[in-house]
Amino acid sequence: MDNAKLTPVSQLGEFGLIDLLTKDISVKNPTTVMGIGDDAAVIKATGKKRYLISTDLLLEGVHFDITYTPLKHLGYKAAVVNFSDMAAMNALPKQIVMGIGLSSKYTVEALEELYAGIKKACDVYGVDFVGGDTTSSAFGMHISVTVIGEATEDKIVYRSGAKPNDLVCVTGDLGGAYMGLMLLEREKKVFKANPDMQPELEGNDYVLGRQLKPEARTDMVRAFEKAKLLPTSMIDISDGLASEALHIAKSSGVALTIVEEKIPIAQNTFDLAKEFQLIPSVTALNGGEDYELLFTVDQKDYEKVKQMDDVTIVGYVTDASEGNRLITPDNHSIELKAQGWDALKREAQ
Amino acid sequence: MDNAKLTPVSQLGEFGLIDLLTKDISVKNPTTVMGIGDDAAVIKATGKKRYLISTDLLLEGVHFDITYTPLKHLGYKAAVVNFSDMAAMNALPKQIVMGIGLSSKYTVEALEELYAGIKKACDVYGVDFVGGDTTSSAFGMHISVTVIGEATEDKIVYRSGAKPNDLVCVTGDLGGAYMGLMLLEREKKVFKANPDMQPELEGNDYVLGRQLKPEARTDMVRAFEKAKLLPTSMIDISDGLASEALHIAKSSGVALTIVEEKIPIAQNTFDLAKEFQLIPSVTALNGGEDYELLFTVDQKDYEKVKQMDDVTIVGYVTDASEGNRLITPDNHSIELKAQGWDALKREAQ
Repeated sequence: MDNAKLTPVSQLGEFGLIDLLTKDISVKNPTTVMGIGDDAAVIKATGKKRYLISTDLLLEGVHFDITYTPLKHLGYKAAVVNFSDMAAMNALPKQIVMGIGLSSKYTVEALEELYAGIKKACDVYGVDFVGGDTTSSAFGMHISVTVIGEATEDKIVYRSGAKPNDLVCVTGDLGGAYMGLMLLEREKKVFKANPDMQPELEGNDYVLGRQLKPEARTDMVRAFEKAKLLPTSMIDISDGLASEALHIAKSSGVALTIVEEKIPIAQNTFDLAKEFQLIPSVTALNGGEDYELLFTVDQKDYEKVKQMDDVTIVGYVTDASEGNRLITPDNHSIELKAQGWDALKREAQ
Repeated sequence: MDNAKLTPVSQLGEFGLIDLLTKDISVKNPTTVMGIGDDAAVIKATGKKRYLISTDLLLEGVHFDITYTPLKHLGYKAAVVNFSDMAAMNALPKQIVMGIGLSSKYTVEALEELYAGIKKACDVYGVDFVGGDTTSSAFGMHISVTVIGEATEDKIVYRSGAKPNDLVCVTGDLGGAYMGLMLLEREKKVFKANPDMQPELEGNDYVLGRQLKPEARTDMVRAFEKAKLLPTSMIDISDGLASEALHIAKSSGVALTIVEEKIPIAQNTFDLAKEFQLIPSVTALNGGEDYELLFTVDQKDYEKVKQMDDVTIVGYVTDASEGNRLITPDNHSIELKAQGWDALKREAQ
């Protein structure tokens, strides 16, 4: 992009900037009575419907690295990770509000790219962007997203309903987003050491997509409805399977056993983990940002689960007294621990 | 505070920190079905009620200076400025979610202070704190607040309803928060130049309170109800009277005339403005953060407005073709411009 064509945010002023950024945002849901353009958005309440609210902060230098994250992807991801919180409740996202803080290094064009990603995500997921706050920041970019979702009262799935003998399931495959991050970090270091080197990203589209452009499993909300299946508990996998399993165990007052060999891992993730001398299942257990769903179902629903696409049974629920366990490939039962993303990152570096 | 007693956030871990921060948060509204403890908060929908959502970002080094802002006050203010957005819609705040990003310089005790302020505000205003996201930041403190409010469909007041011949009114008095900020900035400079000097804040409790611990005019929502008065348009005064008047004018497709002499200014604000060699009314027109309400009412409601406590008529609405005007004390009509907070700050320094 030609720097001479970029507009400093200050040049437009508040009115101009808001007009520019919101000009093609339209309202899609009949429940959205009032979107952008006033002090608050107004949402209609009907019958047995429930509105769900969730919020997330994404900060430059902590949650994203602007040197290898296209701003459009960043906007998309910021919205989608919040939609994922709705899927985790068995709800569908309906509205979002967004706060964006920007340091002086960002231009109007950069902000437009970011908004383009947000709008794209809203279009794909049928969500109305109903408000926001844009402000200057002393350092870097700050994104806060709050999403409002909708569900019928008796369809909402909390973290707290798992009970002994339930089956533990996950959607999709895990560890890919983490391997995508490792790859980007490695190529960034190579580039810093020698700016003439071209990044070696070829053949790794899958893990890069998992990291840079994740999707929320709102399709599962519809799939559960179709299968007439209501999970007993559910959470989205943002911090690694181990950490999320412990959340469900704690909220439900039970323990979870995960069978390591059952964890679904994509070929690209597997190969790249080997290249990085990591155990592939560890990237799934402790790597984050896959935004798949971890849920438990009653044993009587075994047949229904078996017939669902893209769902894998990875373990079972026990009494809390058994402790959270990981069954290793050599059939040892060890304690399931949440090392989390940060621990893994330190280890890997 | 003894530094040896402070706990680094990392020592508690995620579970521990959340447990600590949320242990005495209770649900007050029957509409709050599910608060903190899951991926999203759940809010019940009933009859003709509408839910209103608004979001704000507060960033260290831009919106607050931690050197003279007690964290408890900061938490209180972060919540209250969002409640003010609800009052501006003639709605009452019911739930908030909050995202907090903290650099490593902040301790658990600091975060507890911040939460104490948030909880205090929620108690005072009858609001449920229903969710949040706490994360590390690379630089300073970031606070994002999203508030959900409630109103009956036909009582919501937008910015867009003002019409020619309406009266323009404000609540309380203006400019105080700005003078409080000027005072704190001055004493900070004095302190930096000579750390042995004690700050000269005595006798200025009023303006300091306006800056450090503002209140939202949710009392006006009840007062309007009692007076059977529905404003034609309304906005809260976060960026100075001039800027907000232009917002109403633009949204309503009209123009506003403000009579400078009618602008309510407290004695403490007036005296301090003089001391700083500022025109007192200019602090009201261009200083921000008063969180009073600016609203318009139909002329037929003149008697009702006259009888309301703490409301001052400061002007009138005209056709857009007249332009936004300020009638000066010497009876000149000049263009009403929004210089805003930043412009004024630069001027004053």
